[in-house]
Amino acid sequence: MKRSQLGNITCSLAGALAEVGDAWSLLIIKEIMLKNRRFDGIAAQTGISESSLAIRLKTLESAGIVEKRAYQERPIRYEYRVTERGADLWPALVALNSWGDRWLGRKTPPMTYDCNACGEDARPHLTCTQCGTGLKPPSVTPVQAPAMQRDRARRAG
Amino acid sequence: MKRSQLGNITCSLAGALAEVGDAWSLLIIKEIMLKNRRFDGIAAQTGISESSLAIRLKTLESAGIVEKRAYQERPIRYEYRVTERGADLWPALVALNSWGDRWLGRKTPPMTYDCNACGEDARPHLTCTQCGTGLKPPSVTPVQAPAMQRDRARRAG
Repeated sequence: MKRSQLGNITCSLAGALAEVGDAWSLLIIKEIMLKNRRFDGIAAQTGISESSLAIRLKTLESAGIVEKRAYQERPIRYEYRVTERGADLWPALVALNSWGDRWLGRKTPPMTYDCNACGEDARPHLTCTQCGTGLKPPSVTPVQAPAMQRDRARRAG
Repeated sequence: MKRSQLGNITCSLAGALAEVGDAWSLLIIKEIMLKNRRFDGIAAQTGISESSLAIRLKTLESAGIVEKRAYQERPIRYEYRVTERGADLWPALVALNSWGDRWLGRKTPPMTYDCNACGEDARPHLTCTQCGTGLKPPSVTPVQAPAMQRDRARRAG
């Protein structure tokens, strides 16, 4: 089964994973967000082979997640930026990063985020947009729309 | 390069991806969180082949992310639960799901989360633990610890 086929499941997580559910792609996006925008720099920091990196950048570009911009004319040289669609993956990357901070057994996190509003270590966490409550699985009730219910019933056979 | 080697990078995101940076693994964890806990049910909802599913469940079990529990004795039958380590992936899955809600072009999200505190559609978003500000990339400043700075300098060569 190809990863792209996950997009057929009526589930936004499955659809997201069909596009970016690949360790290397997510790591490439992180590097670009950290302003490491050039091919060689991304290859160096991630250890991804040049051929794999080229394929993934092309796929991310086709998906409208990164875009190529010339930063030099002769010879022409490109760097990569995240689009609005790509930049919006930031909360997902932060959430995965925070999981790593908590569960990989390091004494101190390799990277933290200072909040620009209060200047403190932000330790980003999920809250309810409506009332501001901090969210964990027991504090919300998942509600499946009819389309997802139908898709799941069909798959359950 | 094997995905597990990403764990050598001094970066909690890379370390997290070394363990769970695989579309099928994340989808399996989601199914278990949705209380679809048995092998056949997970296979049905995700479309993952039985052999792939068996391998991934074993890997997730070794990583302490899911655990197997007998729910029937004769013949013995197992179901899967997320451990505390696995349950803590919930914010990352929610964040990826929210990205899918926003960017996959569906009119309505397949699944929403009602906040148990206020009863409204929670639309989980990241906030600063210290001051409660909603967080996006421009609202925080990433701060690399010396270990990460050294690792990145070494890789940059």
